[in-house]
Amino acid sequence: MIQEIIVTTQNEDGSTHIAPMGIREENGLIMIAPFKPSATLENIQRNKSAVVNCIDDVRIFAGCITGRKDWSLVPTEKITGQRLTAALSHIELELDSFEDDGLRPQCYFKPVFEVTHFAFKGFNRAQSAVLEAAILVSRLSMLSEEKISQELEYLMIAIDKTAGENEKIAWQWLMEKIENYRQHKKESEIA
Amino acid sequence: MIQEIIVTTQNEDGSTHIAPMGIREENGLIMIAPFKPSATLENIQRNKSAVVNCIDDVRIFAGCITGRKDWSLVPTEKITGQRLTAALSHIELELDSFEDDGLRPQCYFKPVFEVTHFAFKGFNRAQSAVLEAAILVSRLSMLSEEKISQELEYLMIAIDKTAGENEKIAWQWLMEKIENYRQHKKESEIA
Repeated sequence: MIQEIIVTTQNEDGSTHIAPMGIREENGLIMIAPFKPSATLENIQRNKSAVVNCIDDVRIFAGCITGRKDWSLVPTEKITGQRLTAALSHIELELDSFEDDGLRPQCYFKPVFEVTHFAFKGFNRAQSAVLEAAILVSRLSMLSEEKISQELEYLMIAIDKTAGENEKIAWQWLMEKIENYRQHKKESEIA
Repeated sequence: MIQEIIVTTQNEDGSTHIAPMGIREENGLIMIAPFKPSATLENIQRNKSAVVNCIDDVRIFAGCITGRKDWSLVPTEKITGQRLTAALSHIELELDSFEDDGLRPQCYFKPVFEVTHFAFKGFNRAQSAVLEAAILVSRLSMLSEEKISQELEYLMIAIDKTAGENEKIAWQWLMEKIENYRQHKKESEIA
């Protein structure tokens, strides 16, 4: 089972790196498999720690995919790091073991601190649609225009019916990114 | 913004009625619009209360749609009622006002007690896919076979990639229901 969350890690200069990621639980450990090379992987290897932020503010997913990385942070409790202020819950992690791989090394972590900050309000179909659209945006160059349009049309239904303000903003950011991609592609075809 | 949750209300015989529903927050009140007629509506009108259960166990959504209504319950705290044991959080509600309607009356509730039981673990794409499939199943007779197949094929991707045990079970129940529907439709066409 894969959970889509935000991983925060500490950069060498003390700032915090924010990255959306899918994680998995295995025998009480949490497995994160960042791409090689990536800031998250470098930070994990250097600090032997990371933070899992469970959020429902989908602007942060859409923001990370569209170059908006300035999200409010607060210090963590047991490890040196920062977590998202918007996290409904967060888990502080210490690296337990590391399995190298050419593409995506597997980092296994021991949870050392876990706390709930806000209540889960239930499923929102628009939040799921934003998440799917964010994944789509991260894979644009691998997809046909037909597939992109078809998927967006489907996801748009949940946005129209169930979105709140955050979901509308997040969706808008993703649609701008797709529009830019289409424009860019068109221009390169003409050139 | 609409949140997909489970509403529990007390039947006249003291048992608990469990129903998946979309709710909305308006000026600090929670709005539930059950269909007329429905057990939820009758119970709300008689008891002037209801419970919102925010869950991530999608078996309960799929179960309610496929006739599996026996889910573990525990008594509520401030109102007379029961909540789902599996609720990550629940909100106990007292009826504030009622706007009648021929199809879906709008019931506005005041939250009188709210508590978090378990941490939100982050988004899971398979959970969202189960929820979408459950909505699809509740609308089968309104959809073409082509539309049903196309949507299931799309949702299946998230199931294959990210589902845990609960999501697989819930998906299976929904697929059985669709298979029964298809079989039944085929038989009536032959007859």
